[in-house]
Amino acid sequence: MNLEYVLPHEIERRSFEIIASELGDTKIPDDIKPVVMRVIHTTADFDYLENLYFSPEVIETAMQAIRDHAVIITDTNMAKAGINRGALERCGCTAECFMADADIAETAKQNGTTRAAASVDKAAKLGCPVIFAAGNAPTALIRLSELIQSGAFLPRLVIGVPVGFVNVVQSKEMLIETGIPCIAARGRKGGSNVAAAICNALLYMSEIKNADHC
Amino acid sequence: MNLEYVLPHEIERRSFEIIASELGDTKIPDDIKPVVMRVIHTTADFDYLENLYFSPEVIETAMQAIRDHAVIITDTNMAKAGINRGALERCGCTAECFMADADIAETAKQNGTTRAAASVDKAAKLGCPVIFAAGNAPTALIRLSELIQSGAFLPRLVIGVPVGFVNVVQSKEMLIETGIPCIAARGRKGGSNVAAAICNALLYMSEIKNADHC
Repeated sequence: MNLEYVLPHEIERRSFEIIASELGDTKIPDDIKPVVMRVIHTTADFDYLENLYFSPEVIETAMQAIRDHAVIITDTNMAKAGINRGALERCGCTAECFMADADIAETAKQNGTTRAAASVDKAAKLGCPVIFAAGNAPTALIRLSELIQSGAFLPRLVIGVPVGFVNVVQSKEMLIETGIPCIAARGRKGGSNVAAAICNALLYMSEIKNADHC
Repeated sequence: MNLEYVLPHEIERRSFEIIASELGDTKIPDDIKPVVMRVIHTTADFDYLENLYFSPEVIETAMQAIRDHAVIITDTNMAKAGINRGALERCGCTAECFMADADIAETAKQNGTTRAAASVDKAAKLGCPVIFAAGNAPTALIRLSELIQSGAFLPRLVIGVPVGFVNVVQSKEMLIETGIPCIAARGRKGGSNVAAAICNALLYMSEIKNADHC
C-alpha cells in the first residue's frame, strides 16, 4: 500500500476531492454542501449524508449571526478547542465553554441537573447573540428546548449534535420541533468533533462571503 | 418519543449498559473490552468493534507506561482537551500538545513537512516515557514509523487513530508493521475524540488496577 504524495498545504484540498469523487452524483443543495462535506471530512463517515438536518434558511441565519459577532457556546472544552481560532478572530467572533467553571458545578449540584444544562442557563443570561453548539450533552439540548419553548432564551442558532445512547435521539428531535434555526445530526451519532466541524464550516463560509463582497 | 429518566451521575453507566446489551453475545477479550466499549460510547459507532487493532499484550504495556508517569503527546489540542484531567493527575501523568508552538510551525516550514511530523521530532527529544496519541494527522504516524524503524524513538505506546482520506489507511498499517506497542483504528475512521477516549479508557483502567492493589 503506497503513500500518496501530497504537499502539506494540499492535504485538505485533496481530501475534499476524494470525498466529492466518492459522492459521485449525490445531490446536496449548494448552501449546505460545505457543512456536509466538512462533517464527512472530520469523521470519514458518510452516514452524515443522511443524518444531518438543516432547518429552513439556516445557513443565511448563521451567516447573519456571525456577522453580528455571535458568541459560540460549546458544551465541551474539546469542541471549543476544535474551533479554528484564526477563523473566529477574522470573523470577530469568540468561543466559550462554561463546563469547567466553578459556578456551573455548584448550580448543577444544587439543581440536581447536569453541568451542561447549567451552562445553558448561564448562556441564556449573556444578552448577546449566541450560537449554542452541543456535541456531547443531550441534557443541554433538552434544557435549551425548554427555554426556547418558553421564550426565555432564543439563540440565533443551535448546533445540536450530541452523541450517545441515553436521550440523545430524543433531545435532537425535541430541538428540531422547537422550530429554532438549527443544524442537527439525527440519530445517535455526533460528537465534539462534529460540533467543531460545523462551526468551522460556517466560519469559513462567512469568510468567503465577506471576501466576495470586497 | 419519551425521555428516559436517568440521574446525571448515572448517564454514563446507563450508556454502557445499553452498549453491552446491543453487543449481545459478541465476544471481546476482557483486557481490551474497556477500550472498545469507551470508543463505541464516544462515537456511537459499532464499526470500531471491527476496526480496532491491539498489538500483543498492549494493555499491560500501557498500564506500565502509566505507572511510569508517561507523558501523553497528542497531535491536536482537541484530543488533549478531551483527556480527563482528574484521571491524568491521579495517575501522575500529563498531556501535552506541541501543535500550536512557535518552534513547531518554523521547523515544519523549514523541512517542508507538517506541524504534526515536527511534533513527533520534538517528542522524540523528550527523553521520558511517551505515549503518542495521534487522532488527526497521518503524517505524525508516518514520521513516527520512520523513527521507530530506525530506532531513533521508541514511544512506550502509540495510539494511532487519525481520521480521513489522504494516507490515513496507509499510515496506520505502517504503524502496525513496525511492531511497536500500539492501539490503532484500521481504515479511514478515527479522530481526536477517539484518541482521547482511548487515553481515558487506559487511565481509568490504571486507576481501577491501583485501587485493587490497595
